[in-house]
Amino acid sequence: MSPTQINHVAIVVEDLPTALHFWQDALGLSLQRTEDNPGEAVRIAFLPLGESEIELLEPTTPESGIAKYLAKRGPGMHHVCLQVDDIEAAMQRLRDHQIELINESPRIREDGTRYAFVHPRSAGGVMVELYELPAKA
Amino acid sequence: MSPTQINHVAIVVEDLPTALHFWQDALGLSLQRTEDNPGEAVRIAFLPLGESEIELLEPTTPESGIAKYLAKRGPGMHHVCLQVDDIEAAMQRLRDHQIELINESPRIREDGTRYAFVHPRSAGGVMVELYELPAKA
Repeated sequence: MSPTQINHVAIVVEDLPTALHFWQDALGLSLQRTEDNPGEAVRIAFLPLGESEIELLEPTTPESGIAKYLAKRGPGMHHVCLQVDDIEAAMQRLRDHQIELINESPRIREDGTRYAFVHPRSAGGVMVELYELPAKA
Repeated sequence: MSPTQINHVAIVVEDLPTALHFWQDALGLSLQRTEDNPGEAVRIAFLPLGESEIELLEPTTPESGIAKYLAKRGPGMHHVCLQVDDIEAAMQRLRDHQIELINESPRIREDGTRYAFVHPRSAGGVMVELYELPAKA
């Protein structure tokens, strides 16, 4: 039930073209795709890096959670996402150690990925996301 | 010359035992070793995670750069380190794209690792480190 790898590091950016100048043009990472997430009011650029990804998050409305984070903290690293094989077991183990979770139970993305966030005040100021990928067909 | 993987994510912590309660006990990562780095006045805990590592940095003096960062920003993610095969070429490519580096040329650790930092103001507020590991014997 321990995490097996870093799935992604998510970075809040003011605008994607400027961020891609650094991550794609200057550093040389490949841009796999960009995706609009209307639910969270962000546009996301995915740049694979080894077994992980760099995800760049640009807010698309001033009211989104990410926009508020950006206004308060400035651009920079937002969260790190750790991949687990069994998210329910991982969440239970965290609760057993008095770690506070933001999500009581896993949420599910369209592609079947199950995810949950640990509260930063239980994780030394770090926003930690857990991912359980859907079983492959 | 593009980065091949995330080498580590470095996290500034107020004290290692509290941080290890979360990362080791509750999350289940393995503590590989801790190391004192008197030069940078930090104690570092290394927790391997897939092809990467989580590094927890605890300042050992109030004057260290990490202590000042902690006082100013609070605990949390400090930098992400990307592994490259040829750090000189990676640095040149960054310069060619008008990216500002903190180190003019690579610095070298005792184990032979060559490293350099990109200035966060050129990287959208993210502290990015580059690592070129020593060739294996």
